[in-house]
Amino acid sequence: MNIVITGGAGFLGARLARTLLAQKQLSLAGAAPQPIARITLVDRAQPPADLLADPRIAAVVGDLNALLTPGPAGAAAVPADTQLVFHLAAAVSGECEADFDLGMRSNLDATRALLEACRALKTRPTVVFASSLAVFGNPPGQALPEVIEDDTLPTPQSSYGIQKFIGEQLVADYARKGFVRGRNVRLMTVSVRPGRPNGAASSFLSGMIREPLAGVKAACPVPADIPVALSSPARTVEGLIRAAQAGDAEWGPLTAVNLPALRASVGDMAAALGRVAGPAATDLLDWTPDPAILRLVKTWPGNVASTRAKTLGLAPDTDFEAVIRDYIRENPDAIKLPVQP
Amino acid sequence: MNIVITGGAGFLGARLARTLLAQKQLSLAGAAPQPIARITLVDRAQPPADLLADPRIAAVVGDLNALLTPGPAGAAAVPADTQLVFHLAAAVSGECEADFDLGMRSNLDATRALLEACRALKTRPTVVFASSLAVFGNPPGQALPEVIEDDTLPTPQSSYGIQKFIGEQLVADYARKGFVRGRNVRLMTVSVRPGRPNGAASSFLSGMIREPLAGVKAACPVPADIPVALSSPARTVEGLIRAAQAGDAEWGPLTAVNLPALRASVGDMAAALGRVAGPAATDLLDWTPDPAILRLVKTWPGNVASTRAKTLGLAPDTDFEAVIRDYIRENPDAIKLPVQP
Repeated sequence: MNIVITGGAGFLGARLARTLLAQKQLSLAGAAPQPIARITLVDRAQPPADLLADPRIAAVVGDLNALLTPGPAGAAAVPADTQLVFHLAAAVSGECEADFDLGMRSNLDATRALLEACRALKTRPTVVFASSLAVFGNPPGQALPEVIEDDTLPTPQSSYGIQKFIGEQLVADYARKGFVRGRNVRLMTVSVRPGRPNGAASSFLSGMIREPLAGVKAACPVPADIPVALSSPARTVEGLIRAAQAGDAEWGPLTAVNLPALRASVGDMAAALGRVAGPAATDLLDWTPDPAILRLVKTWPGNVASTRAKTLGLAPDTDFEAVIRDYIRENPDAIKLPVQP
Repeated sequence: MNIVITGGAGFLGARLARTLLAQKQLSLAGAAPQPIARITLVDRAQPPADLLADPRIAAVVGDLNALLTPGPAGAAAVPADTQLVFHLAAAVSGECEADFDLGMRSNLDATRALLEACRALKTRPTVVFASSLAVFGNPPGQALPEVIEDDTLPTPQSSYGIQKFIGEQLVADYARKGFVRGRNVRLMTVSVRPGRPNGAASSFLSGMIREPLAGVKAACPVPADIPVALSSPARTVEGLIRAAQAGDAEWGPLTAVNLPALRASVGDMAAALGRVAGPAATDLLDWTPDPAILRLVKTWPGNVASTRAKTLGLAPDTDFEAVIRDYIRENPDAIKLPVQP
């Protein structure tokens, strides 16, 4: 089978591709395991060299909307033998809030174009749509529910959240119509992401760990008591693959599944950093508030229940210190400070 | 002020226009009353003659998507002095289910184009978006919640419902961004509609009253015990105008408000018809089931709470027999059977 990953050159897409390549086969939607013949990485950027070196990897580089305009390029982005699409693209929260039209084009139009490309295959491919906990948010003057359940009504307070929630609706209806098999999953805030900061309002939730470990100052632009719902890269990739594997009955309704979350405050995260790398690391944190980031982050829920995810056998990370130590083990070249065992 | 009504030549749009013309002025979004200088009716059809004869009516005839393509036609559909838009267009439930692409174009694309036209005015006009109780629906094998509240998570089971729910999200985000003032209202099943049947799956809920009163056979294609949530034309227009009048704080969150509903079963409706026009009317009902209509109608809720609507002072019809008698009084030429006083 061919698997398409949009945003496939990004950190999460590349990690997902590496995990799939390593397991060599996949049980798709409850069926018997099949070999993974090819993974098509669709992204504006070239994939990392290790992936390009694998003969099972095909890279399609370009803007998703342009690629999916009917024609030969569209056929390359979603080849006829595609049985599974992980849709991780495209624009992130901060950039969608700063540039409304960019977000509508990159997230809404591109998702619809991708679903149309899948529908055109007439083979009912499985689409795992990476939605986000950013669909939740408390309107001004209102509190969020104490606990966010899978069936809590999302009231997004960002254009990114709205676009993701609309994407969930589109996936649900394309699935109900039989055009695709739909799997809507809401990703928690992924931390620790390696590499460089991005335009997500949550970017600092990786940077505040990654940068100090590299001996570099990092912004912590919200108060320490702000709660966040975290997921390590490993647990996040696990959730995406589990969604692809689940049969229709096992998966349940076409509404979105909240992936499991580790609940922590930003202060808890800083304290875990301190236990791993001491004050040499935590002294590099700059707690100057940034109102634009705070405005988005404080509307996101900290306490997310993952009832459906649990029935699928998915569990959250249990300890953020262990997540930091995983990051250090996986990214030895990015660590410049001494680490306490 | 100019008021735009999309779908303005339809029954509900025309009735809304007549009501606004009669009241001559409007308190918009909590402000002091202003005279209604013009009402622009945008529709694929010409408005009724009585409206065309009023000098305050402007008719813009054409397809909404084509009209709103930037250019002079778009300027005619949403003129610069527009302070209020009632978006009642476009495709109805049955046709959206039969023709997926038509629904996406007529409901999703057109709503977005309309919001863009409003945004381009840079005057933050008020947009009253007519959503629908069809956003609610129980997935196969699951029951709906006992009572549908304003904050119940919609899980639409029709493309029409999905498109309306996406429209609510777009209106909410355009409002949050300050491009428009947003008022999402969910209309109940409007009955008794005068005129001819349309492609809505709920069309029979007017036809089963209107046709027998005209001495014509009518389909009642679902079992008598199916519950429905009804609203008379008068109460529906009242709800739309109330949404336009409410100030931001009075209106509350940007999520949708369920308009009040009269709860009845299809059998109750037939019984009320019998009380008004006797067996001569009810004998004209043909109870042969239609699975396509039943599939949509039985997913819609019968028991809708309207908590926010109540705080706005809106009340449901209390008696379907009285609704039928209103229809008879307002449409004397359409009544061919003797009516019992």
